[in-house]
Amino acid sequence: MNGDWTSLGPGAEFDLIRRMTRRWGALARGVGDDAAVLDVPGGARLVASTDMSVEGVHFRQDWLSLEDIGYRSATAALSDLAAMAADPMGLLVAVSIPRALAAMVEALADGIGAAARMAECPIVGGDLARGDRIALTITVLGSVRKPMFRRGALPGDALFITGRLGGPGAALKGLIAGDPAPAHLDRFRRPVARLAEARWLAASGATAMMDISDGLSSDARHLAAASDVSLRIDLGALPVVTGVQPREAAVSGEEYELLLTAPDELDCEAFRQRFALPLTCIGRVGTAGEPRVTFHQGEERVDPEEGYDHFSG
Amino acid sequence: MNGDWTSLGPGAEFDLIRRMTRRWGALARGVGDDAAVLDVPGGARLVASTDMSVEGVHFRQDWLSLEDIGYRSATAALSDLAAMAADPMGLLVAVSIPRALAAMVEALADGIGAAARMAECPIVGGDLARGDRIALTITVLGSVRKPMFRRGALPGDALFITGRLGGPGAALKGLIAGDPAPAHLDRFRRPVARLAEARWLAASGATAMMDISDGLSSDARHLAAASDVSLRIDLGALPVVTGVQPREAAVSGEEYELLLTAPDELDCEAFRQRFALPLTCIGRVGTAGEPRVTFHQGEERVDPEEGYDHFSG
Repeated sequence: MNGDWTSLGPGAEFDLIRRMTRRWGALARGVGDDAAVLDVPGGARLVASTDMSVEGVHFRQDWLSLEDIGYRSATAALSDLAAMAADPMGLLVAVSIPRALAAMVEALADGIGAAARMAECPIVGGDLARGDRIALTITVLGSVRKPMFRRGALPGDALFITGRLGGPGAALKGLIAGDPAPAHLDRFRRPVARLAEARWLAASGATAMMDISDGLSSDARHLAAASDVSLRIDLGALPVVTGVQPREAAVSGEEYELLLTAPDELDCEAFRQRFALPLTCIGRVGTAGEPRVTFHQGEERVDPEEGYDHFSG
Repeated sequence: MNGDWTSLGPGAEFDLIRRMTRRWGALARGVGDDAAVLDVPGGARLVASTDMSVEGVHFRQDWLSLEDIGYRSATAALSDLAAMAADPMGLLVAVSIPRALAAMVEALADGIGAAARMAECPIVGGDLARGDRIALTITVLGSVRKPMFRRGALPGDALFITGRLGGPGAALKGLIAGDPAPAHLDRFRRPVARLAEARWLAASGATAMMDISDGLSSDARHLAAASDVSLRIDLGALPVVTGVQPREAAVSGEEYELLLTAPDELDCEAFRQRFALPLTCIGRVGTAGEPRVTFHQGEERVDPEEGYDHFSG
């Protein structure tokens, strides 16, 4: 569906595509046709990531509106650009939906558009297919001069996290229990990709970074593995939302906050003033060559459960 | 699933990802982590396209092996790069599959890998999710100095097509009729993205170009609409495979041949010698400001049916 949207030929599929792009207005930049054409700023590197969300696996229509579903899928992908400290350049949308419900397509488009607009990311292409269930694949492209990787954490670095954890996990628990409007629902429905925050952190000395979409406990292991270091996390230091225990917050998925390592000098107060968001030291990088994560509560070592794994459930 | 594949943490999903990447070997370049990082050659523009294939809509497992399914999905996306005359830079794979069948994942990976290898395109990232049915979203990234668009056809240009049409349509018809091994099955199972051919055509004076994945009849209208010109196609001139009538060939989808306009001087013989593939003049660009396509058989005007439309069926 790339291209000069209005000049597509006739057909039911193209009518639906036109409906989506009309919702996006100037956000949809019809630059290519079979494919989008984008300019990568001189001296920058291209960053690309793809993210699939499937109904019944990643979301349920009784918990989330179609607009929320579109918004969350796009934000999940944009959060991968944040994790690399990249600037969004373009977003591609592949949607499968049950047979031709125009209102459904428009609601998804509105949610995707809201997330893209918030990230100042044009929508540059996509594809539309029929399918029994809604599935969305969002691919994001960004540019960066100095990408942040999961590798790069150095023994002695401090470990930091943005925001407050536990909101999406608590909301999800409430929804599963049948509460249609649990506390922190908005953090589950409308997460925010920490794009500007990530660029600030990269410019301020971060040595390794990632987003914690699978939850802190699960994702910290990836950072430890990639950097080949041990990580010691102090549960008591975790910044949590009201009513959530640190132990629960450590396994709360869908957070889209940033986990990073940096020298102790990282200025958490300057970050907080700039972004009205906490930046908290939650632990430390230990030994090189021992890729593992341990959680501690005071002197005691504790073991929060695993993060949610779509394939082991 | 971007990143340094071997340094992913534990978990069933990551085991499956490791299985896929092992099949790809050096083809999978773990350059990023949350996202892939790629260098766009200086002076070139970035080209991006995304393509979704859903089981039961775009393919059936009783007609195609999982390897074929992976191969075709990747080729469909790579063909969009060909349509822009771009050089492949990277491919991202998002797969949803029914619960964790490792052999299934490996077969899909083998097919995707075969297509990527043929196009000399590294696999730079992806995502893996559970889903009732197999769905594959392939996103391709390429670079190009002078992209070819669907717009640009000039009144008086000749209209050309690569290859011979009708094979995939004939094979599909046979499969639907219950023949497990119809003629031209290989053209359906293993289409080829015309990447090198497209670059040659762009350098040789093509004015507008696209791939005809939805069939000549359907896709020619997109070129006419984008270029705002009328196109006159001579059915008798269509290059067809053995046993297929031009009328059938005009509506045969899944072709992945290139449709292009160029001055009469375009050297079809040089193309044929270079690529061992026919390049055939099949019509002419008519009037500007009248975006329509007409088919003619001698003096008589004919009307092949519409190309396949996933949403109107």
